[in-house]
Amino acid sequence: MSSGISSVLTNLSTSDHTVVVSINIFVALLCACIVIGHLLEENRWMNESITAIAIGLCTGVIILLTTGGTSSHIFVFSEDLFFIYLLPPIIFNAGFQVKKKQFFRNFTTIMLFGAVGTLVSFFIIFFGAKKIFEKMDIGDLDLGDYLAIGAIFSATDSVCTLQVLNQDETPLLYSLVFGEGVVNDATSVVLFNAIQNFDLTHINIWSVVELIGNFLYLFIISTLLGVFAGLLSAYIIKKLYFGRHSTDREVAIMILMAYLSYMLAELFDLSAILTVFFCGIVMSHYTWHNVTESSRVTTKHIFATLSFIAEIFIFLYVGMDALDIEKWKLVQTSPGKSVGVSSILLGLVLVGRAAFVFPLSYISNLAKKSTTEKIDFKQQITIWWAGLMRGAVSVALAYNQVNVYIVCTLHIQESN
Amino acid sequence: MSSGISSVLTNLSTSDHTVVVSINIFVALLCACIVIGHLLEENRWMNESITAIAIGLCTGVIILLTTGGTSSHIFVFSEDLFFIYLLPPIIFNAGFQVKKKQFFRNFTTIMLFGAVGTLVSFFIIFFGAKKIFEKMDIGDLDLGDYLAIGAIFSATDSVCTLQVLNQDETPLLYSLVFGEGVVNDATSVVLFNAIQNFDLTHINIWSVVELIGNFLYLFIISTLLGVFAGLLSAYIIKKLYFGRHSTDREVAIMILMAYLSYMLAELFDLSAILTVFFCGIVMSHYTWHNVTESSRVTTKHIFATLSFIAEIFIFLYVGMDALDIEKWKLVQTSPGKSVGVSSILLGLVLVGRAAFVFPLSYISNLAKKSTTEKIDFKQQITIWWAGLMRGAVSVALAYNQVNVYIVCTLHIQESN
Repeated sequence: MSSGISSVLTNLSTSDHTVVVSINIFVALLCACIVIGHLLEENRWMNESITAIAIGLCTGVIILLTTGGTSSHIFVFSEDLFFIYLLPPIIFNAGFQVKKKQFFRNFTTIMLFGAVGTLVSFFIIFFGAKKIFEKMDIGDLDLGDYLAIGAIFSATDSVCTLQVLNQDETPLLYSLVFGEGVVNDATSVVLFNAIQNFDLTHINIWSVVELIGNFLYLFIISTLLGVFAGLLSAYIIKKLYFGRHSTDREVAIMILMAYLSYMLAELFDLSAILTVFFCGIVMSHYTWHNVTESSRVTTKHIFATLSFIAEIFIFLYVGMDALDIEKWKLVQTSPGKSVGVSSILLGLVLVGRAAFVFPLSYISNLAKKSTTEKIDFKQQITIWWAGLMRGAVSVALAYNQVNVYIVCTLHIQESN
Repeated sequence: MSSGISSVLTNLSTSDHTVVVSINIFVALLCACIVIGHLLEENRWMNESITAIAIGLCTGVIILLTTGGTSSHIFVFSEDLFFIYLLPPIIFNAGFQVKKKQFFRNFTTIMLFGAVGTLVSFFIIFFGAKKIFEKMDIGDLDLGDYLAIGAIFSATDSVCTLQVLNQDETPLLYSLVFGEGVVNDATSVVLFNAIQNFDLTHINIWSVVELIGNFLYLFIISTLLGVFAGLLSAYIIKKLYFGRHSTDREVAIMILMAYLSYMLAELFDLSAILTVFFCGIVMSHYTWHNVTESSRVTTKHIFATLSFIAEIFIFLYVGMDALDIEKWKLVQTSPGKSVGVSSILLGLVLVGRAAFVFPLSYISNLAKKSTTEKIDFKQQITIWWAGLMRGAVSVALAYNQVNVYIVCTLHIQESN
């Protein structure tokens, strides 16, 4: 019994030491990123994300040296950490702060890019990879693998866009590229499910209809869930008149309801990104106008702050991870082939995007009357390139380290 | 390779299902607690905490029925969850919102209660338990066990106080009881360390001096760390003039620096509660006045909101846990003895508190000149009783389930 109590006491005083150490390092690095990023803001080539990646790299080097070259991580980045804690505030805040008028005016174009465009891109990457890789000697890939490659590489990244395009300076481009990234998530979920469930040997017209039906179902249900959560929060706050008593309750209800909508969508295998994005839009349009003045100020800034911290966290980790010894060792065993595969994939992604950005922009322009609303050629080029960015979301997808080969190719593609 | 990619896809679409389910249930319950707690606010016997415990109990019953009586938990409450995520916002917010003038005017009294009082209480419980339990047949307890019992039961709970006393209605009582709870944490850490490290067979005058020295060292270093973190945040924000660019950065720096101070104190085995409490005081006194108007509104409300959510979370869990089958089974094997031990401990805690509250109040009153500052007899009774509350902190201490016996006694004591 004595040793029992003693070990209780030991636990109490030390807690889980490694967890405490890594939280300390990460929080200190986050502070450093904010301060240094702020100091470098005058410099047009720097921002918090790049600072975070640079600081992450330096930290990685230091850890690599102190651990004698065995590891560059403080802890392993789990997919859950990303999808359950870091992604929701980022996407919700994007919905909360998005310029709604601009967004809905371009809604059809965004849907075209996000749904039809992603499908076009998916098929091009799938067929291209199948034709080219079958001629190369890179192991035994079956039809399912090629479909998976198509699905992974046709997904664009909504987080990275937020870092590069500015909503105030280029509102049209921002809403198009970011909107594509959000709608795209629903398409990806449908594609992933389709690849797993469809009988790949018997693809006919009905399976295509089923695919389209699935997409529409998922898109509509996910959106409705987000809208419902937003409206419910507005109703609760208006009906119960929380402001009478406390701002804290209003803010708590908004945070919790938004998070609940995301987690419910995850639970029912919907597109959680789409849900929480629309929840953010509805909350900023209805709930936000029913709360007290101080709640309005608080929510506006706290959502932005949480999103800001989550983004820096992700980029900090990306920097640290670039030095991952294990992955580089794998590349080293066949450097030529790795570079070859990466270049081919990069080329296919470029072709895939070009194949839908320019035709769909043309179609979209036909429907617009005023010239200011049309997407000019320069903007089309930007959309083409912006969608190439593979940032946080791709990294998270790739951290399912079951298949290290894909991780490697993704990694190299990032550094391109 | 095919199965590799397939399992990646499966992971992507399902994530960790149990985690998602429990987060969903918990977030939904938190929302319910806030709404129901708000509706019942007119009722003077109800508040969010009691609502949370009641809802937790109901949920526990439902889970118990659906799982066929095997479990009343959704997940196991880990000590880390409490000490790393839930406690920091609660204590920081208490420091941030505390009425500083009132607090520092009573500083000597608070120190008397928190340091000397806890020691008196510790010795009384230790000697009492040793004398009484040695006559009962409750297993083989050695000197270290009795010291541990003394240390655990002499610690008061700062979180529970916040729920019962109101800073605006009874400022003197609030600052005394809550202040005692905070200072008390430093005393507990010193006591725990002392019990582990001292040679118990050779206690002489020097070990007492060493104990006092340790307490002073820990108290001063912990306080200084908190003050330093607060001042550093004020310096950074003033010097770099963050407000020029964004409120989000100011808020992020304040949140991160406060959390960093807590985690650093944990890392160096200091009293993290004391550190983050003083960090809160300094931040509200210096940093808060250097930020933009919107940062001021945001920080004031977001710290309160986070603390509010963390408190409800804890009480929700306490409610669920009251039905824990395993622990009740243990009580059932010897109900008479469990009740006996619990009653004796409760009695000892009462005697221990009485032995320092009344004499120390008398001493403190001698030093005060105006009658309004003196602690009258009715207030002394309240302090005596208020310190009896064992809420969230005790539960967390007890969740080191290494020694289930202590857990049981604590549990029964709570329900008394």
